[in-house]
Amino acid sequence: MTDDADIDPTLEPDVFSRDCASRGVLQDATSRWGLLALVALRDGELRFSALRRRVDGVSERMLSSTLQSLERDGFIDREVLQAIPPKVEYSLTDLGAEVADRLAGLIDLVEGRLPEVEKSRQDYDAR
Amino acid sequence: MTDDADIDPTLEPDVFSRDCASRGVLQDATSRWGLLALVALRDGELRFSALRRRVDGVSERMLSSTLQSLERDGFIDREVLQAIPPKVEYSLTDLGAEVADRLAGLIDLVEGRLPEVEKSRQDYDAR
Repeated sequence: MTDDADIDPTLEPDVFSRDCASRGVLQDATSRWGLLALVALRDGELRFSALRRRVDGVSERMLSSTLQSLERDGFIDREVLQAIPPKVEYSLTDLGAEVADRLAGLIDLVEGRLPEVEKSRQDYDAR
Repeated sequence: MTDDADIDPTLEPDVFSRDCASRGVLQDATSRWGLLALVALRDGELRFSALRRRVDGVSERMLSSTLQSLERDGFIDREVLQAIPPKVEYSLTDLGAEVADRLAGLIDLVEGRLPEVEKSRQDYDAR
């Protein structure tokens, strides 16, 4: 049972407020490795080793810590399959899938406009 | 004049590739302060001091460095207005506005589902 009595219902989450928990959640979802792990799982569940190959460049330790944060936030599920040796599979929750959809839209935009960004950087550096 | 001859047209930007520049651009746009600055500017241009009040908790130095990265990427314009003392105004470019729209969608989702995330965190920590 959750006791909601001490939560002020007039206090809506606001990312512009320095104490709002939404800031930390956004950082989990958009961290260098969190963003890639979430979007990688849009194609279906993956085992740790497959996820690590997909998220090119991440260390075992960083991927492990990233997945723990995402699981804690309720963005991914971690399932241990009965096998010898045991297999662990990761998949998106419904909420995680919604977050990943939005991240994928952002990635598509940035990838598609990358030449424009690179031109802007060249102009800026040449000033 | 740009010499495109040495750019391999078959190499599309791919954020999953460790050397792709899109990774760094995404990190600029989704950094703790970059994300808030971009979304704050959706309501119209702002001077530095107003932007700093809106992005609650950021230091002058961090905001300044964040705005430089965003300007270099071509996401924001910086205009110096003739006045005594000179005034500096920041506004979104067309590309920056598209990025900010997508970030705002992500923020709306996370703010709206924050109770669900907090419940998930409580359950995870109670295991």
